[in-house]
Amino acid sequence: MTRPYELIVRKRDGLALSPEEIREFMRAYTQDQIPDYQMSALLMAIFFRGMSPEELSAWADAMLRSGDVLDLSDLPGVKVDKHSTGGVGDKISLPLAPLAAALGVVVPMVSGRGLGHTGGTLDKLESIPGFRTDLSVARFREILRSHGACLIGQTAEIAPADKRLYALRDVTGTVESIPLIASSIMSKKLAEGIDALVLDVKVGKGAFMKEREQARVLASTMIEIGARMGRRVVALLTPMDQPLGRMVGNALEVAESIEVLQGKGPADLVALTVELTAEMVLLAGRASSMDDARQQCQNALRDGSALSRFRAIVEAHGGDPKAIDDISRLPQAPEVTALRAPRSGYVVGLDALTVGLAAVDMGAGRARKEDSIDPGVGIVFEKRCGDEVKAGDILAHLHHRGDVSRAAARILGAYEFGDAPIAAAPVVYERLG
Amino acid sequence: MTRPYELIVRKRDGLALSPEEIREFMRAYTQDQIPDYQMSALLMAIFFRGMSPEELSAWADAMLRSGDVLDLSDLPGVKVDKHSTGGVGDKISLPLAPLAAALGVVVPMVSGRGLGHTGGTLDKLESIPGFRTDLSVARFREILRSHGACLIGQTAEIAPADKRLYALRDVTGTVESIPLIASSIMSKKLAEGIDALVLDVKVGKGAFMKEREQARVLASTMIEIGARMGRRVVALLTPMDQPLGRMVGNALEVAESIEVLQGKGPADLVALTVELTAEMVLLAGRASSMDDARQQCQNALRDGSALSRFRAIVEAHGGDPKAIDDISRLPQAPEVTALRAPRSGYVVGLDALTVGLAAVDMGAGRARKEDSIDPGVGIVFEKRCGDEVKAGDILAHLHHRGDVSRAAARILGAYEFGDAPIAAAPVVYERLG
Repeated sequence: MTRPYELIVRKRDGLALSPEEIREFMRAYTQDQIPDYQMSALLMAIFFRGMSPEELSAWADAMLRSGDVLDLSDLPGVKVDKHSTGGVGDKISLPLAPLAAALGVVVPMVSGRGLGHTGGTLDKLESIPGFRTDLSVARFREILRSHGACLIGQTAEIAPADKRLYALRDVTGTVESIPLIASSIMSKKLAEGIDALVLDVKVGKGAFMKEREQARVLASTMIEIGARMGRRVVALLTPMDQPLGRMVGNALEVAESIEVLQGKGPADLVALTVELTAEMVLLAGRASSMDDARQQCQNALRDGSALSRFRAIVEAHGGDPKAIDDISRLPQAPEVTALRAPRSGYVVGLDALTVGLAAVDMGAGRARKEDSIDPGVGIVFEKRCGDEVKAGDILAHLHHRGDVSRAAARILGAYEFGDAPIAAAPVVYERLG
Repeated sequence: MTRPYELIVRKRDGLALSPEEIREFMRAYTQDQIPDYQMSALLMAIFFRGMSPEELSAWADAMLRSGDVLDLSDLPGVKVDKHSTGGVGDKISLPLAPLAAALGVVVPMVSGRGLGHTGGTLDKLESIPGFRTDLSVARFREILRSHGACLIGQTAEIAPADKRLYALRDVTGTVESIPLIASSIMSKKLAEGIDALVLDVKVGKGAFMKEREQARVLASTMIEIGARMGRRVVALLTPMDQPLGRMVGNALEVAESIEVLQGKGPADLVALTVELTAEMVLLAGRASSMDDARQQCQNALRDGSALSRFRAIVEAHGGDPKAIDDISRLPQAPEVTALRAPRSGYVVGLDALTVGLAAVDMGAGRARKEDSIDPGVGIVFEKRCGDEVKAGDILAHLHHRGDVSRAAARILGAYEFGDAPIAAAPVVYERLG
């Protein structure tokens, strides 16, 4: 084996590592034969030097192979997942998974928890009474086979090298590296045994990628890794300046997802749910064109088939299916306080990052991994970008427990008012792949 | 305290750290409050981003203050040391220390051991029977007071942070960083309690700095650190393409040093010894000009005063003073093999790096820190750059123990022959400071 320090020096000096060297380095790291201090030096060198496409796919493949790789080839149907790089109010996985499943796509979804200003799919689902995300692989297969979609948490067996690397990156200033982000995401997603993947790469104030160009590079990098590993990957670059939909908070986002599945819900959330699901339907060969796929999505939302699929999935996960039809069965915050407009005019900005941080402050998210969350709390926005307001109008309802003054001030500060209306943001900036 | 990871991110993004932040980071690292994996990430970020003069002197100062700083102000005289960045055949400290002491300079010299292709002053001195370099600080002061020069090894108390950092850099690909090299050298040297310092920055095939420009940056960086810490520093950039002098190997280099102190020795070695010592004499205020200082050096070599000072210093260190006058008392290799010229012509190259590695192979140096060395083995060159040779002439005598065929082949490969003579390299390329 080439000495670890020689590989660090090669990368530092801008030379490429061979796939064998990357595989060996990752194997030795996972088996504690390479200490964290050598890995962190390599990660920082990668931050500065990047990785070639060959290195990238070898890196993702090595992380993928550090644990179990699900083989779902015995299940009929094309397996397609969706991954979002994270935003505020982004509950799309909840309506998307049953909608895609209702249209014949098999959706094996391994999700994460909320950290920092963004929420997590697992936390949202677990606000449904009884819903369990810590299922065995056997049960995951069963639910997939009978209902077409199953949503679980990352197990210790899925890409353990990525788990360890992520913890190390978090404390060594090496999180913000596009090749490392891309390979981390792709190693976890490809371990799910999927055939194809739709990526929702968020851009804007509330996203990790603040600039369009950066997001485009991340998207292309993930598409490239997928292609080299024989998977079709499509990426949509979508706006994340204001929160997606009207609701932020775990049970509230479940409620809003149910609205979408009932054929209602806010336009921005419905439109993006349809776009992303339609991409999955097309990738699964279940539609002849994007227009056909979009039409099928709209039908399934209208005719209740997506909603009844959601009910079945919730039940399969041990959740209370009655909560789907009676959202008063979901956890609720003890108090609701209205936030009022200090002036008349138009909402021209609603900073998603500030909203996300205020939601964490209210107990809806985690500042640190070990924090617990309060599923009932959150925010329901009555006014969003483009809306006209009069001084004293209700901007939002804060669903809270205890003192909310600090969060209220922050959310008010997230609003920007102007004298003229602004145009709505597009649903999708661009499509790659 | 600012969180370590924030400082890593700031340095990574090209922003400067404050002196307080650097001091605090180093303190916490030394006290095991910051793990190696965060330090190695910071070191790699420094490799890419460099350090400002303020950061540099804070970094060197923090390492210096991590341990004991000698206070020699009670000793009369100006304390001046010399440091070489390391080369092959570089035994200059041995004749220089007694020569400078004989001319009234106080020379508190803390030296290192050989590692890789370069030898170490301590290993050379310890080839003199009985010579001890592990003296207490009290004995160090005594010898300095009575003989004007003392040569010891780095103690655990001198810049312990540098010691730990060096070990970490060695395995994380962060050795070759000019600010880190410069601050490592300066922290150790300034801990000796010196007033001024002469640096011999080697440039060429057998040096760490292969290019003149690189060496110039290193020299200026060290001069800058010295200036910010109130010390006068002069640097000479000197060639290290072929070994310095005719002999390589520990006891052999002692023998060649004695030749210099006897007013003999090869021209290149004598000339550089005189230049570096003259700089020290001038810095100590013991000469009116460089010409005066050179003249004093030449006199002290001719009249035996430098040699008798060396004898006294050796005796004070517990060494056998008779070995100075009878070098057969030094360790000797059991076998001597002649290496002969394969062709006629001129020697136009003698690669110092290859020679240094061959010497390690013969047992004269260490490939790893824990290796032991064989003091008697080494090489005596009979032909060097510029010399005319006839096929079959003796190029060098290899003093060895056991099979020498591999080292002989390497040394022969270090020679380059041509059809015309080449000009001798200058003694000094340039002087800074």
